Amino acid sequence: MSENTTYSQFELTKEFIVGLKQIIETNNVTEARKIIADLHSADIADIYDELSLDEAKFIHLLLDEETASEVISELEDDVRDKFLKALPGEIIAENVIKNMESDDAADVIGDLCEEKKAEVLSSIEDVEQAGDIVELLNYDEDTAGGLMAKELLAVNKNLTVRACLVELRQQAEKVKNIYYIYVIDNDGKLVGTLSLKKLLLAQSSHIIFDICNTDVITVHTGEDDEDVANLMHKYNLIALPVVDGIGRLVGKITIDDVVDVIKEEAEKDYQMVSGITEDVESSDSAFKMIRARVPWLIIGLFGELIGSRVIGIFEGDIIKYATLALFMPLIAAMGGNAGVQSSSIIVQGLASGNLGIESISKKIGKEFVIASINGVLLSVIVFVFTLFFHGDIIITISISIALFMVIIFASLFGTIVPLILNRFKIDPAVATGPFITTSNDILGFLIYFYTARIIFSI
Amino acid sequence: MSENTTYSQFELTKEFIVGLKQIIETNNVTEARKIIADLHSADIADIYDELSLDEAKFIHLLLDEETASEVISELEDDVRDKFLKALPGEIIAENVIKNMESDDAADVIGDLCEEKKAEVLSSIEDVEQAGDIVELLNYDEDTAGGLMAKELLAVNKNLTVRACLVELRQQAEKVKNIYYIYVIDNDGKLVGTLSLKKLLLAQSSHIIFDICNTDVITVHTGEDDEDVANLMHKYNLIALPVVDGIGRLVGKITIDDVVDVIKEEAEKDYQMVSGITEDVESSDSAFKMIRARVPWLIIGLFGELIGSRVIGIFEGDIIKYATLALFMPLIAAMGGNAGVQSSSIIVQGLASGNLGIESISKKIGKEFVIASINGVLLSVIVFVFTLFFHGDIIITISISIALFMVIIFASLFGTIVPLILNRFKIDPAVATGPFITTSNDILGFLIYFYTARIIFSI
Repeated sequence: MSENTTYSQFELTKEFIVGLKQIIETNNVTEARKIIADLHSADIADIYDELSLDEAKFIHLLLDEETASEVISELEDDVRDKFLKALPGEIIAENVIKNMESDDAADVIGDLCEEKKAEVLSSIEDVEQAGDIVELLNYDEDTAGGLMAKELLAVNKNLTVRACLVELRQQAEKVKNIYYIYVIDNDGKLVGTLSLKKLLLAQSSHIIFDICNTDVITVHTGEDDEDVANLMHKYNLIALPVVDGIGRLVGKITIDDVVDVIKEEAEKDYQMVSGITEDVESSDSAFKMIRARVPWLIIGLFGELIGSRVIGIFEGDIIKYATLALFMPLIAAMGGNAGVQSSSIIVQGLASGNLGIESISKKIGKEFVIASINGVLLSVIVFVFTLFFHGDIIITISISIALFMVIIFASLFGTIVPLILNRFKIDPAVATGPFITTSNDILGFLIYFYTARIIFSI
Repeated sequence: MSENTTYSQFELTKEFIVGLKQIIETNNVTEARKIIADLHSADIADIYDELSLDEAKFIHLLLDEETASEVISELEDDVRDKFLKALPGEIIAENVIKNMESDDAADVIGDLCEEKKAEVLSSIEDVEQAGDIVELLNYDEDTAGGLMAKELLAVNKNLTVRACLVELRQQAEKVKNIYYIYVIDNDGKLVGTLSLKKLLLAQSSHIIFDICNTDVITVHTGEDDEDVANLMHKYNLIALPVVDGIGRLVGKITIDDVVDVIKEEAEKDYQMVSGITEDVESSDSAFKMIRARVPWLIIGLFGELIGSRVIGIFEGDIIKYATLALFMPLIAAMGGNAGVQSSSIIVQGLASGNLGIESISKKIGKEFVIASINGVLLSVIVFVFTLFFHGDIIITISISIALFMVIIFASLFGTIVPLILNRFKIDPAVATGPFITTSNDILGFLIYFYTARIIFSI
């Protein structure tokens, strides 16, 4: 049990990295081997992140074959790219790909340049493995085919439990983890699943088809990966069989691959609402951070520059009633807040596939009710506050009415835009964050100043 | 395979619900039974969401015991509450709890009021099950103990493979899915895990301890659920054994429970950045939506009212130079955008536990570099634009310098505040969304007008 605590409690610290770098610099192989011996491949991959390419290579050469390929599949994409660029195709095939499951192998090879891809594929000794990888490379990354692995246990439905156990002992060598045994007919079509529990409890003379579960949830190779994730989450599935156009079993997707999809999708939406364009972590380089952050800042800036032109139309009004200017940012901010709220609820509903059965017109109607009530509440607060602090009843009425209208327009805008984008197959998450706040700013100014003009002229 | 397509393709439509409601109204038991026969419990739970309590009860009475309890554990919390309130404790114990795994049972019972809880617990016939549930109820919901289930397969390390198989056949009855077999010593302490694959491939005379894997990742009952989720994700675990203070095996956590945690956490952070205070879906009632959305709107409104007072300090400047007012919203919006970007990167890093090994001072230094470069870029754009459209060099310089400073302050503020909140054990996600945009608005106005005053007086 000593190693187990090493596992779960390993924490990557600056001291650890400094110490390791020293050990590498002094070429102390014994010490380096000792340090990494107890580490999980995921931790070693994290360590590579903090080392130079040469230092990481030094460590890599000390790993056993299986750990070495596990580490490669755990590496962040950019680190892996650098790493594999430095290795000849033959070495990649032999040391990296050989011990990988087909889905990980396809992911790694899929990221290589065309030339290297061909080089690696032709160097894989096991023809069956190479064939599996070539097949998987054909599928789009964002589909069930792109997620699935070829390794699975499949038995013919006509076998007895005894024969099935013999068959499984032969097949089990090539599969890392067994979750279900898939039952197929003579054409390779999936007809059922068998849990290991059922197999353990069954009489050895029973026929597999009689004891297997024929209510199987399956997906086609072309199914969208987000839909696969929602399906597996909804039905609490650990593994999901993938079938081709005529129902033949071609692969399986396991929950850990889907957890990655769920996390990535959630992070993508989160970044979008925060105005960040690519997957960044706080430990990334300043250059990468700027690249991820500056695009939305520039778009937002141009939006606000247009906003300043819109306000410019009313410069005369501001000169006459300077108090109007004091509440411009309030109008802008509240429109932005209300818009982000409504758009993000729609975006989240679209992502998790549970928008419910309400029709779009009912959704918009409900949003109108919500916005009206919120709008009345906020307007009353602003009315009391402004009357108390500024005393001018005309300005107070203008601001309160404008705020009410801005809340309604911003909320409806935030609801409708993501739905429209989604209809046109554009990621609706684009309509959150800086986009919605900036457009609502401009909309808000127009409503605000026109309302004021009308009220002032009464 | 016909049922399997029913499963994966079931889509809840308005027509389906209307049809079902009619069938229920006419008391057509045969037809209702036919409709639900092919449905997965998760789909039936979704259907309850759209029915009245009486209609849902009608359907519920047609389900077999196992499906009935599965549906209950799949229900949304508020629907389940209503449903269970209508049932006597004895019925809950017999029809709902009896077929549930201990973790689901504890979740359901934990949500009941104290009186009903006691009533249900005392009505559970199986004393062992009742004991398991009572034990699980002791753990905090947000810990490993609160996530785990008591059902697992554990065998003594001294058994032979043959004896182990006999033992497993006995234990397997009570466990739904088998992922790993846990190996314990005579004191019940966890010493290893055994995969079913290993067991299938082993000779029947082998001793379990010799073939089991002793490198086990475990967690203690008190471990935070987010940490458990990060651990299982990082190490790609399907099941994770939970041990008590002295290393005895007390339960296991499976990946599907952790997927819920991951989704919930991601949604919580997303809602926070969008200014929504509770878990809402677009299909929720208008009342629930208002309750979730109005708090941050009101907080934001008060922030902006303070902002309007701050601008009020400079009303004299606005009256003199009305052009200054045109760019106030730009300054506010850009401060907000930059602040949300930096705070959300920190919040996401804190949530996934990968802030990296950089020290806080290095992080702040890097943020300063990023903000400076972004600031220079944006200021140059504003400079060119303002000079071209307004021609006034003094105003142009004021705005550009102010924007540069606002970007820097907002970015640093967005980086530092979540780190401080986290230090004080407050959810750092609070410092995203409306909070950061509103505070940066106020900060932005102060910087903007003071900069203008200084430049104008030069």
